[in-house]
Amino acid sequence: MTKTAAALIIGNELLTGKIQELNLAYLGKELYRLGIQLRRVVMCLDDIDTIAADLNLLRDSHDYVFTSGGVGPTHDDMTLPAVAKAFAVPLVRVPEIEGLIRQYHGDRATEAHLRMADAPEGSTFISNEQVRWPTVCIGNVLIFPGVPEIFRAKFAAVRPHLTGGARFYSHAVFTHCDEGEIALQLRELEASFAGVSIGSYPTFRDPAYRTKVTFDGRDPDEITRAAETFCAQLDPQKIVRQEGL
Amino acid sequence: MTKTAAALIIGNELLTGKIQELNLAYLGKELYRLGIQLRRVVMCLDDIDTIAADLNLLRDSHDYVFTSGGVGPTHDDMTLPAVAKAFAVPLVRVPEIEGLIRQYHGDRATEAHLRMADAPEGSTFISNEQVRWPTVCIGNVLIFPGVPEIFRAKFAAVRPHLTGGARFYSHAVFTHCDEGEIALQLRELEASFAGVSIGSYPTFRDPAYRTKVTFDGRDPDEITRAAETFCAQLDPQKIVRQEGL
Repeated sequence: MTKTAAALIIGNELLTGKIQELNLAYLGKELYRLGIQLRRVVMCLDDIDTIAADLNLLRDSHDYVFTSGGVGPTHDDMTLPAVAKAFAVPLVRVPEIEGLIRQYHGDRATEAHLRMADAPEGSTFISNEQVRWPTVCIGNVLIFPGVPEIFRAKFAAVRPHLTGGARFYSHAVFTHCDEGEIALQLRELEASFAGVSIGSYPTFRDPAYRTKVTFDGRDPDEITRAAETFCAQLDPQKIVRQEGL
Repeated sequence: MTKTAAALIIGNELLTGKIQELNLAYLGKELYRLGIQLRRVVMCLDDIDTIAADLNLLRDSHDYVFTSGGVGPTHDDMTLPAVAKAFAVPLVRVPEIEGLIRQYHGDRATEAHLRMADAPEGSTFISNEQVRWPTVCIGNVLIFPGVPEIFRAKFAAVRPHLTGGARFYSHAVFTHCDEGEIALQLRELEASFAGVSIGSYPTFRDPAYRTKVTFDGRDPDEITRAAETFCAQLDPQKIVRQEGL
């Protein structure tokens, strides 16, 4: 059984283009390495009802849901109240997180800081020696901050707790071919190798190659056979290099 | 009336993290300048039924829907058949696009290349002198390629055809404040200035400032008053710089 995941990316600033989203490609790659397929991403505004409704749709249809953003202390940080709403539970103050906040801010800790110690009732928490600030999890939902450095640090602490599937393998062939030249061949290859997903990506800025063809799946032998069959059909001068496996 | 938009970003390679998505921030910023609010983004796999279902949800609830990706000549390019399916119309060959393809590829034009001349029946086409390859539009859906350079070039040709709303204005104040210090103040400001949306974005890597506070809306005077009120409440030494308006 393939394990599946979705991501809910929260923040007005991403939708107005003020900030370039940087967590998804990282998350997709890390999950892929664990044998978990990221199947869907929704990016939404800082609105509590929208977040709660999206979260409920995503958590019903995926093994894991990762949220990114909206967990700071200010009025535009809606994610934790929205998760509580989605699960129909209250927010409750978590003494361990409150302790970390008071330790860090001392007398300067405000009620706004302490809001960051609130989590939906029934949450569990993942932390380790390196990353003491816990990641809040409830059901199959894991709540991450939007700041990329912190997202990555927390994901490293969470990674051992995720149950992956059989791992994926990937092989890439970089070619001088135009996509139209190889389209029919790729269609036939995908039909012949049922367990291999074949992708074709043209470049318009890298002079070294023209189209990258990728072979992905769970069976490394089948991927190798598909890639070898593809290469054997090409003029060898059209093959630039290969990567992967 | 605010004009709204959604984006449907299509491609397995984005969800496995093979490729960093680069069109959204550009699209969000350009739409914002036109007074069109990008409210929602969905990123999905190269699957015809998924794309069609998502497109139907998004086009019913937004003024414009922009798709990105899946428009090349290979088997994993599903967007145009999916759009046709969503609108319940057939794909038909467009003579003008077929002409461009034959002109470009000459005798080497394959049936795969010519697939790129197929569009859903009832589509309209936007091109100009600089960008002769047309953008396919049907209903309120505009279909763009995933390659960022081409996305941008085509958007420039499409821009004059979009009907925007009253434009948005934005002002940013960069501060040395911790978010928790100013959270209560920002909450009160947002309540006092009903037409201003206030965002708060901490940085953890730029030593020059700690939190950027943004004021967005359609009334530049109200934004200025909100930003001035915010600054007047701060210790002047905590204000690093201001941008915008």
